[in-house]
Amino acid sequence: MEDTVEEYLERIEPADQGAMRAATERQAVLTKPAGSLGVLEELSVKVAGITGSARPAVPAPAVVTVFAADHGVHAQNVSPWPQEVTAAMLANFAGGGAAVNAFAANNGVDVRVVDVGVATPVDGLDIVHANIRPGTRDLSQIEALTEEEARAAVAVGFDLADQLVREGYRCLLTGDMGIANTTASAALIATFTGATAVEVTGRGTGIDDAMLAHKTAIVEAALKRHAVPPTEPLEALQAYGGLEHAALAGYILGAAANKVPVILDGVIAGAAGLVAQAFSPAVIDYCVAGHRSAEPGHAVALKTLGLQPLVDLDLRLGEGTGAVLAYPILTCAVRALSEMATFEDAGISS
Amino acid sequence: MEDTVEEYLERIEPADQGAMRAATERQAVLTKPAGSLGVLEELSVKVAGITGSARPAVPAPAVVTVFAADHGVHAQNVSPWPQEVTAAMLANFAGGGAAVNAFAANNGVDVRVVDVGVATPVDGLDIVHANIRPGTRDLSQIEALTEEEARAAVAVGFDLADQLVREGYRCLLTGDMGIANTTASAALIATFTGATAVEVTGRGTGIDDAMLAHKTAIVEAALKRHAVPPTEPLEALQAYGGLEHAALAGYILGAAANKVPVILDGVIAGAAGLVAQAFSPAVIDYCVAGHRSAEPGHAVALKTLGLQPLVDLDLRLGEGTGAVLAYPILTCAVRALSEMATFEDAGISS
Repeated sequence: MEDTVEEYLERIEPADQGAMRAATERQAVLTKPAGSLGVLEELSVKVAGITGSARPAVPAPAVVTVFAADHGVHAQNVSPWPQEVTAAMLANFAGGGAAVNAFAANNGVDVRVVDVGVATPVDGLDIVHANIRPGTRDLSQIEALTEEEARAAVAVGFDLADQLVREGYRCLLTGDMGIANTTASAALIATFTGATAVEVTGRGTGIDDAMLAHKTAIVEAALKRHAVPPTEPLEALQAYGGLEHAALAGYILGAAANKVPVILDGVIAGAAGLVAQAFSPAVIDYCVAGHRSAEPGHAVALKTLGLQPLVDLDLRLGEGTGAVLAYPILTCAVRALSEMATFEDAGISS
Repeated sequence: MEDTVEEYLERIEPADQGAMRAATERQAVLTKPAGSLGVLEELSVKVAGITGSARPAVPAPAVVTVFAADHGVHAQNVSPWPQEVTAAMLANFAGGGAAVNAFAANNGVDVRVVDVGVATPVDGLDIVHANIRPGTRDLSQIEALTEEEARAAVAVGFDLADQLVREGYRCLLTGDMGIANTTASAALIATFTGATAVEVTGRGTGIDDAMLAHKTAIVEAALKRHAVPPTEPLEALQAYGGLEHAALAGYILGAAANKVPVILDGVIAGAAGLVAQAFSPAVIDYCVAGHRSAEPGHAVALKTLGLQPLVDLDLRLGEGTGAVLAYPILTCAVRALSEMATFEDAGISS
């Protein structure tokens, strides 16, 4: 068990530079002014590097996986929502009634829901049951997870990525659900970016000034207590959790190991992405930032990840909504690269 | 014939305020923190106002119409591309090889191509043939169009919008093709926004500093020569053209008259949107800005239109690519409003 994460990391290779060069050359002869598809040209070249093909297939089918878990720090009054809402929303996902279900149905994306550590029993739901423990311990008091728990949660995400690719999926999207998970995200983002608690702590689902000040103080004290260096992703997961962050980090690493693009959702995925990047810098070659969340820590995380978000529409819901919204932009970019006529095809001298 | 535009304008009504209020109330009880879908919540309320329903149907099927025409001002050396590229690209659209074809296929949008005034004969192509004249006259020398020609081009767009809605389309997207059409766009945008030629003239498909300075001087001189007041949209179309701008203005008015959303593409659509707004301010209730083009005049136009772009990815291609890219964002917004569970449905106390 202890060697699992290390085995995963050995499977991750940098993107294919030759395919990226060939894709860049192809972009220059397609029937459009050079560069006129802006960010979509870079995006298509990225997928060429991921897949090793200068004319990649459309990355489909796609699946958004919503990793759900609870947080011991919820006891510190950092969210206006009761912890039971995590489980209630899982029922809502399973019933198809949440925002991510509506977006996914619209964009042809399948939805998987994973209980990786929800505090309230959800045994009856038709979801993936992989509960490591019923929520993390309170990061403001002690370590959120043992090393074994953190490794097990990473494995849940990585193994699921392997399984989804075996099932035929060619694009993995991140989703998350967990009341109080922006608190753990803030601590992780501060750890890996060097930003202060004030810079990365936000209003989450919508808290008032007093609760924000309290939440920020909790994050600040936790950073001081645990003092994890940015080179230690596993220690950071132990210190702050959450179980969904650990699983997401594994899922992102798993996408990279399988050479499929992974679209990151908002601030939770950004925090998990930083964990994955600390495990293996090459993982970023496989990551696409779906959107920029309104949560302040997300922009900070994206900067360190070196990713430009595709959508910026003040979303702050999570669930994977921003990633699902961005998915057709990714597929448009790839289809333009792979399916457009060249000037020569069209008989136009360029 | 002379009364046609006036008859069109009589058919345009403001959006349904009652449906917008009801949609806003519904957004507040859906299973998500209030406001957490950001711009998509406003967008869904807009569609409620357009359609008169607080739970609107998904605006589908959708069609992007590429209005194509040439410009007499091309003779003044404002573009590095020969005029024949307009016709060559029409053949490319008809053959499915252009960027808009790739995006449209990806997003389930149909493509129509309309010759409203291409200079090179395109008789053999399977497109809509509605050529008013083979390109405008040179706006730097004389009026680009007669009043009759301008009215006829507006009618092409309006009548096609009517026809498309009769065929069953429930969302119209704008597209355009015309070498040198950013020059006419700059003149139109300056007319209706009060901006200077320098502020609204850009590099189009990619011109060097010398050609940009020359193009800006052409726009500046034309604005001085024609001096159309911002209250006179028909005069502005006569002064500057283009035939595709006139048709697009008619198409946008036609979408509004038929109470279907119209997604504007980039700077050409922005200029046409300003013409439509000058004809009938209520038309904006029906307009969605697909994206923000890299062309500087577009941001200026969007400000006067009062529209926030959904996508901002440095695209500067035209053809309707930005509108098609934005279409799934619009449908996601509507599906969330219409299909999500309420807190009561989900048994969560909010």
